[in-house]
Amino acid sequence: MSARTVLTGKIQSSGLLGKDLISTQEWNREEIDYLMQFAKDIKKEYYAGRVSQLFKNKTFFMLFYNTSTRTRSSFEAAATILGGHSQFIDFATTRGSEGESIKDMAKMYERLGHALGVRILESAVDYVYGKGNAVIREYAKYADIPVINMADDVYHPTQAITDIFTLQEKLGRNLEKKKYVIAWTYSDHIRSWGSVQDEMLIATKYGMDTVLAYPEGFHVDENLVQQARNNASQSGGNLEINHNLSEAMKKADAVFPRSWASHDCVLTGLNKFTKEREIELHNKYKDWRLSKKLTDVMNRDGVVTHVLPVFRGQEADDEVMDGPRSMIYDQAENLLYVRAAVLALLPSGPTGKI
Amino acid sequence: MSARTVLTGKIQSSGLLGKDLISTQEWNREEIDYLMQFAKDIKKEYYAGRVSQLFKNKTFFMLFYNTSTRTRSSFEAAATILGGHSQFIDFATTRGSEGESIKDMAKMYERLGHALGVRILESAVDYVYGKGNAVIREYAKYADIPVINMADDVYHPTQAITDIFTLQEKLGRNLEKKKYVIAWTYSDHIRSWGSVQDEMLIATKYGMDTVLAYPEGFHVDENLVQQARNNASQSGGNLEINHNLSEAMKKADAVFPRSWASHDCVLTGLNKFTKEREIELHNKYKDWRLSKKLTDVMNRDGVVTHVLPVFRGQEADDEVMDGPRSMIYDQAENLLYVRAAVLALLPSGPTGKI
Amino acid sequence: MSARTVLTGKIQSSGLLGKDLISTQEWNREEIDYLMQFAKDIKKEYYAGRVSQLFKNKTFFMLFYNTSTRTRSSFEAAATILGGHSQFIDFATTRGSEGESIKDMAKMYERLGHALGVRILESAVDYVYGKGNAVIREYAKYADIPVINMADDVYHPTQAITDIFTLQEKLGRNLEKKKYVIAWTYSDHIRSWGSVQDEMLIATKYGMDTVLAYPEGFHVDENLVQQARNNASQSGGNLEINHNLSEAMKKADAVFPRSWASHDCVLTGLNKFTKEREIELHNKYKDWRLSKKLTDVMNRDGVVTHVLPVFRGQEADDEVMDGPRSMIYDQAENLLYVRAAVLALLPSGPTGKI
Repeated sequence: MSARTVLTGKIQSSGLLGKDLISTQEWNREEIDYLMQFAKDIKKEYYAGRVSQLFKNKTFFMLFYNTSTRTRSSFEAAATILGGHSQFIDFATTRGSEGESIKDMAKMYERLGHALGVRILESAVDYVYGKGNAVIREYAKYADIPVINMADDVYHPTQAITDIFTLQEKLGRNLEKKKYVIAWTYSDHIRSWGSVQDEMLIATKYGMDTVLAYPEGFHVDENLVQQARNNASQSGGNLEINHNLSEAMKKADAVFPRSWASHDCVLTGLNKFTKEREIELHNKYKDWRLSKKLTDVMNRDGVVTHVLPVFRGQEADDEVMDGPRSMIYDQAENLLYVRAAVLALLPSGPTGKI
Repeated sequence: MSARTVLTGKIQSSGLLGKDLISTQEWNREEIDYLMQFAKDIKKEYYAGRVSQLFKNKTFFMLFYNTSTRTRSSFEAAATILGGHSQFIDFATTRGSEGESIKDMAKMYERLGHALGVRILESAVDYVYGKGNAVIREYAKYADIPVINMADDVYHPTQAITDIFTLQEKLGRNLEKKKYVIAWTYSDHIRSWGSVQDEMLIATKYGMDTVLAYPEGFHVDENLVQQARNNASQSGGNLEINHNLSEAMKKADAVFPRSWASHDCVLTGLNKFTKEREIELHNKYKDWRLSKKLTDVMNRDGVVTHVLPVFRGQEADDEVMDGPRSMIYDQAENLLYVRAAVLALLPSGPTGKI
Repeated sequence: MSARTVLTGKIQSSGLLGKDLISTQEWNREEIDYLMQFAKDIKKEYYAGRVSQLFKNKTFFMLFYNTSTRTRSSFEAAATILGGHSQFIDFATTRGSEGESIKDMAKMYERLGHALGVRILESAVDYVYGKGNAVIREYAKYADIPVINMADDVYHPTQAITDIFTLQEKLGRNLEKKKYVIAWTYSDHIRSWGSVQDEMLIATKYGMDTVLAYPEGFHVDENLVQQARNNASQSGGNLEINHNLSEAMKKADAVFPRSWASHDCVLTGLNKFTKEREIELHNKYKDWRLSKKLTDVMNRDGVVTHVLPVFRGQEADDEVMDGPRSMIYDQAENLLYVRAAVLALLPSGPTGKI
């Protein structure tokens, strides 16, 4: 039986056909495991110079309200590997920018292709927390093809899955009791909570001893923190909040140094809060920067993760990001296989067939 | 003989190879019928999960001076289905935006690919009627590959053919004597005449009892109205002008509720006319809105069409657009097959061969 | 042995796998000859209706800081012919436009695809000479996939190779002692030196009697002029500077009428120099325009070349650009085959394998 036959069989029995991917929280462990195993198979095939045409002649619409480097290029390259095509659609070039309804756009993409990705966050929703996610859910409400969250102001699921996928490569398949520090770090940028929150949710789902480290005032969505606690109690993991970065780093197996906006800023919205006031607040915590010294207290094989872009010299030192612990480029590469798995497993045609 | 062989044979005998598609008026009934039959074959194949590589390794250049949702995504997905690629080219990203001549751009696209689509209307031509169409004809004058009008200020042929294609699906193959109301409806937007005019031309060509319903002052291009009358006299159809919408709707088999700019506005050009004055004029006719009540006097199986985007609550009520008569999403889907047929039948390579 | 097998074998023995293409000067004659022979083979195949899938399922990232007509569309069409895909990436739509480091972007593209093209010049680098080239070299420093210069402020290698390729088609395989006039001509635009300089370098490398004709004050980069002199002494060619256009045109076999910015303007940078002052300088030399009369003193079979866009009526008369000597559209077409050869020969996957 050829490699293609094997993978095709796996699609049909996956139970993922037609499923949306809006947050990792809406997928169970088995579903995420299935996707990751499929991504692993694709990666193995790809390195062996074989390619399965699992998205052949199919279309993934990528609707971007915001800029993107990795998400766009990896989803587009993933479709190419699988014989199909991802359309890069800058929202500003569509009639949507002139007031066309989400319902009509969603139904249209449903009729013309096989899956719809949407990115919407930060300035595209005037920094009103949850508004980006609400827009994606509205697309999903109407489109009878899978809707993939390509990053919003609450979640970033394909990134979160890729991060766990890469941590398994680095730390071993079983991540239970591995200590993962998601650390607020300094930058003079105002970034959404999506990557951080989905990381917290999936890390606790996989039983990691998850530590959220941040200065007072930088706590994230309380509802999602509660969900992460529930995840931990089911998985045998843990969720800890820590306001002392060097304390938090001790015996860590992984650390993700990431700047995000303060709780008040996100909840109030930038219009009222002002960018200046928020950056002033950030400036108080310039020492929250991942230095080599801070990583020295990690476990010997501990790794540094990042979803990128990283603000070098602010969130973390070059010495760390370019050092032996850094897994950031392997992580970026794995976006290709995880997203290829998404394109192979979820999309369905107009007849619901593969 | 495989499905592919059959379709390939049909391309060679179509007589459409190398033909421009700038308006439906420049194509005869037999040519349009041929294209629609081909689109029907592609749709059937597609639903059966088969794909003919009729545009394999070929390129369609899509040059957009204006925004697009459906036209861009359907032409791009159509090329993907057929094994080729449609390049989405925002005119602003080309040297053309810095003054490169149309002749040189046209010859260049001719040498590098297999067909060239152009959209240019409204703000891109300062609302000067006919200027968009003139630009497309200049591309066609120089490019020795088919030039496809992807909507200008006078015509929108691939949309018009798709509309007839879908009406045949809904009302039966023979559209003669079916009553089609193309109704001006309210919006606070200033839209070109292209979709409306090409719809009037093709509906009369197919023998429909075509009714143009609009308030005084919203008549369209007189020359094209005359051409539509000629079409009707040849096809056994009819063209009627009616200034009373509820009267026009009686026993209609189809209605297309669409806002367009007034005659004075289009002919004078927006620069002189001012947007404010035009919207003020529109505001007098807010009751020209397709309501459920208005559709109740249609024939029992009468359908509501729209090229989209539709201005919901202005041109038509949600109840109508989402109701059982609405064929708008089937119509959007059919863009895929009609445009796939265009990409399969018209384009020619540098040697003029398939 | 099938055509595909032959071409695939040629890739493996080319020695070009993984090589950057930043200027023609960094490639030797044998390498350029190899690439051109490969382009010739691809052209022959293409005209015969055959296509070798030499870039199948592979990705070329095209990162544009500036507008493009030909470079973008030809590289994208070239990938389509070879079964792969070129992603058109407007730099403004990436996180790079928000400060992401070149290192991280370069490594990311390396991990996700097979080659990276970059265009950066003129306004994108504030007209600071050499800054665009420095940016491309920084991408190349970090990316372990081939980096292709898609035009910067110093070089434009894929264009230069295409020009030599086309001159060989027109003037014969051996270009030694053929007289090639690279002529400054008038325009009211401020254009980089890249195309002109790479043309001078490759023409001297191929033994042409190369003449740079320009008014006083329009000399280009002295270091590159010296390199061109060295090329000429090795190839048996020549490099001559001439300030009299009609004198220079005598017995020419080829002429490239091209406007470029003055030496002071380029070296000082536009910010200090002002656009007005530069255009004022250009305006003194409006008679430096390629007219039919000027081409009448060329050799009988002499040709007119241009990288396009050409400023018609300024750089050259329509009569010349559209006349029998003009090879501009053949030159544009050949971009397709030369760039297809680049995509077939240089790129390597994540494992360094084809």
